[in-house]
Amino acid sequence: MKSIVTIGGGTGQFTLLSGLKKYPVRLTSIVSMADDGGSTGMLRDELGVLPPGDVRQCLVALSEADSIMRDLFNYRYDHGGLKGHSFGNIFLSSLEKITGSFEEAVRVAGLVLAIRGEVMPVTTSKVTLVCGKEKVLQGQYAIEMGRIEPERASIRLEPESYANPKAVAAIESADLIVLGPGNLYCSIIPNLLVRGIPEAIGRSHAGVVYNCNLMTKVGHNDGFSVLDFAGEIERYIGKGRIDFVTYNNHLPEKELVERYALEGEFPVAVGDIEEEFAEVSFRPLPADLVSRAALVRKEGDPIKRSLIRHNPEVLAALIVQNCLGGL
Amino acid sequence: MKSIVTIGGGTGQFTLLSGLKKYPVRLTSIVSMADDGGSTGMLRDELGVLPPGDVRQCLVALSEADSIMRDLFNYRYDHGGLKGHSFGNIFLSSLEKITGSFEEAVRVAGLVLAIRGEVMPVTTSKVTLVCGKEKVLQGQYAIEMGRIEPERASIRLEPESYANPKAVAAIESADLIVLGPGNLYCSIIPNLLVRGIPEAIGRSHAGVVYNCNLMTKVGHNDGFSVLDFAGEIERYIGKGRIDFVTYNNHLPEKELVERYALEGEFPVAVGDIEEEFAEVSFRPLPADLVSRAALVRKEGDPIKRSLIRHNPEVLAALIVQNCLGGL
Repeated sequence: MKSIVTIGGGTGQFTLLSGLKKYPVRLTSIVSMADDGGSTGMLRDELGVLPPGDVRQCLVALSEADSIMRDLFNYRYDHGGLKGHSFGNIFLSSLEKITGSFEEAVRVAGLVLAIRGEVMPVTTSKVTLVCGKEKVLQGQYAIEMGRIEPERASIRLEPESYANPKAVAAIESADLIVLGPGNLYCSIIPNLLVRGIPEAIGRSHAGVVYNCNLMTKVGHNDGFSVLDFAGEIERYIGKGRIDFVTYNNHLPEKELVERYALEGEFPVAVGDIEEEFAEVSFRPLPADLVSRAALVRKEGDPIKRSLIRHNPEVLAALIVQNCLGGL
Repeated sequence: MKSIVTIGGGTGQFTLLSGLKKYPVRLTSIVSMADDGGSTGMLRDELGVLPPGDVRQCLVALSEADSIMRDLFNYRYDHGGLKGHSFGNIFLSSLEKITGSFEEAVRVAGLVLAIRGEVMPVTTSKVTLVCGKEKVLQGQYAIEMGRIEPERASIRLEPESYANPKAVAAIESADLIVLGPGNLYCSIIPNLLVRGIPEAIGRSHAGVVYNCNLMTKVGHNDGFSVLDFAGEIERYIGKGRIDFVTYNNHLPEKELVERYALEGEFPVAVGDIEEEFAEVSFRPLPADLVSRAALVRKEGDPIKRSLIRHNPEVLAALIVQNCLGGL
């Protein structure tokens, strides 16, 4: 069975894994440990644990348990002392406190959720995402909410952290490494800032796919084209290391595009690739990647979700059919 | 396989079930829904759920899952917004919110914990334990902490509640019904105040065992003998309905007894039964029932636990050997 390693965090990983898990492949999801917002941030502060939120989303995506268990792990409280917490985060953090090991917590949660595949933290040390030299933004949440354009190249983890050896081994033995989709500086690059991860990607014989974002993010990558996104990734993993880039070539619904435009966010421009096709070292994989499914807000979920998302089935099919050289 | 129904709540049920589950019997644990203290009380207030705490203890007692899962369900937080909560309570209450049914929540938790047997709430309606006519104590926690002696006969549930039909069916078809051990007015009698429960015990052909407390409780049953305890139970289920009473006939360690004495609590007197043996309708089952195992306080558990407890193995053996007419 072919082995696919995905690298990322946040809802982008959830989407990707939800699609890929329908294929007969061995899935390993490597997850950023930089999150410090919302429920995850509260648990980090209060219990001194590693961030559970992104891992939870990957576990739920890979779960083959009853839908009640998946709903439970995503359940968010909107009242009282538990307000803002997600059940799955509490589950992971409590297991970490009991076992003394985040990895063991993830393993047990994986059993309870009957996951297909494996989820592993990119590092098991506690890190903070930091950006800026003059005006320093501390923490992933602050960076996600802030403007980082002038100093985005300074983004780093503090203290310096080292890769989870299991993640390194998975990357080295993979048939395919899939980066993103997800927030470029807050979900994807925090993995590539962990010492040992870019090196492992460099050593691995696996093909590398980068799933480019659908929309730009204000203050982070305004005006970025697909090539610009891919270029940022290659700044961390090495020029020419990307073999495939998937990107969207159909505009989302006008109403949604207008809503994003009010926030200063726009569909990622694709012109450059098609004009400069001969110049790029990767194979471009354009497709109509936008999900048309209306997102239903789950009861108890107070978080406002963006609505322009990848279609998990189309994305997974594009990757499996083009990047894996057969199943 | 013989069928045993236990009725109670709190740590007494945990002890009883921990012992009984080692025998090849079908176990059904019927649990009080009157608890409103601590983590359970907060969840009732904040999420509007049924009380999870007593059910959680029974589920953990019957669990055959990995010890990590049992530790997880009993884990209590001592920091931040989750302070005072137990993980298992959060688990049950979250499942109740998602499924809309406490019984369904208990069923799913039972699967996760791989329980042997079944746990069922005595009623599925929301009730408050109330005591007193002049000076009214509202809620199990207030009653547990208060003095109820002059008005203990007035103890009641508000609003009037009706038995869970599954609990009634289990009682009717049982081979043995086991009441207690546990706090008389706060854990045992709240089950007998539910309409339909005493009636079902009356109709059932099962033998009835009452496990008498080891110690009196100040302000609740000062000076009670074993006969007094049994008499209180029969006030609810009918005179002569108890077939067996287990009670302790060995003093606990002197140091522990002295510590309890400082709180006004004393070993339950056994003299009456032995003198008036001919008068009682039940068969007395005296034994050395006190656990000698030092209780280890689990990390993260801020609750002060009493230390004079039943020995689960001795209690279960006494019941199985004497009350069941063979396995």
